[in-house]
Amino acid sequence: MSSIEELYPVECAFCKIAQAYPANDPSSSSSPVPHAPDPEKVFPQCQLLLSTPLVLAVLDIMPIAPGHILLITREHYKKLTDMYPSKAPTLGEWMPILSAALCKATGIEDWNVVQNNGERAAQVVPHVHFHFIPRYQEGRREVARKGNVDMGMLRSWKMFGRGAREELDEDEGAELARVLREALREVLGEEMREGGKSKL
Amino acid sequence: MSSIEELYPVECAFCKIAQAYPANDPSSSSSPVPHAPDPEKVFPQCQLLLSTPLVLAVLDIMPIAPGHILLITREHYKKLTDMYPSKAPTLGEWMPILSAALCKATGIEDWNVVQNNGERAAQVVPHVHFHFIPRYQEGRREVARKGNVDMGMLRSWKMFGRGAREELDEDEGAELARVLREALREVLGEEMREGGKSKL
Ligand SMILES: [Zn+2]
Ligand SMILES: [Zn+2]
Repeated sequence: MSSIEELYPVECAFCKIAQAYPANDPSSSSSPVPHAPDPEKVFPQCQLLLSTPLVLAVLDIMPIAPGHILLITREHYKKLTDMYPSKAPTLGEWMPILSAALCKATGIEDWNVVQNNGERAAQVVPHVHFHFIPRYQEGRREVARKGNVDMGMLRSWKMFGRGAREELDEDEGAELARVLREALREVLGEEMREGGKSKL
Repeated sequence: MSSIEELYPVECAFCKIAQAYPANDPSSSSSPVPHAPDPEKVFPQCQLLLSTPLVLAVLDIMPIAPGHILLITREHYKKLTDMYPSKAPTLGEWMPILSAALCKATGIEDWNVVQNNGERAAQVVPHVHFHFIPRYQEGRREVARKGNVDMGMLRSWKMFGRGAREELDEDEGAELARVLREALREVLGEEMREGGKSKL
């Protein structure tokens, strides 16, 4: 007996993730932030931060800096222009929230949000995604103290600020993702208390 | 007799633009795309593409490539994290629309969307803005033929693909802005016909 997925394997790396982590995953109860998602549901491992009917957020597996997040549309659109604009507001809404969680978790204050369309614009995976790329200060240990991540455990010191990409270490990724999910929940809690009307 | 603006000059370049081009400008009637906005309302000149209660879009005055657009929040927020997430959906919604207009007007197919937070992330004006940066093909004249802009009139051929920034020529800027506004109106027309629910 073959499943439909076996017969028609999903080629797009991000569609694979979207399929592996459905929005209505019972383990996530009502929160858009999954409790303890299994990274092994896809290969290579996926550190899931957020899963809603319209978007997902994950750690980049080739981070430019620790905490490099991707915000992904659940549906497959190659470029921004392939989306119905009526589906795009959710992307906008998550940007400040993901950014706040990134700052809280890592202690950074500066970061870039980048979305590439097409090969000439350096788009690698042809499925709409926004990069959230932390820019660490020179005084890294001070930064680390301000954030919630124990930067001492990260192998990746040498990466900081360099801009080169190397593969995400599985243990580091798991720890970063755990702290980022915690920060996301805190930010969302604050959001709700401030009564921000949310279409999340 | 001094106006409040004379007594308390606005320091932020983008707040100056927001103040000079109010959302309820009668000349714009009901369209978010202004008809023939006066570029001289601020110095340096501003080529306005879009003006709503929540956002504005203008041509970058130091474009990386012809058609380099900025999407700006009307309110002053330094970083994404300073915005209420409930105001951010509009940013998301305009992204595919501005992108489509950019493609239509210039004939490009590839572009980057970039938003910088903080000095270490190369943020120059400390007021939330998204860059829309076209990436032109090698065969520039072919591209030009596909778009609505008469690239022959542009002094800036040499800029294409170079990535260096130079000042926007006033005549070129005016022509680009005119064609981009036209493209925006077309895209919005299509939007409405497709019945996309819009909070523009
Ligand atoms: Zn896909
Ligand atoms: Zn401002």
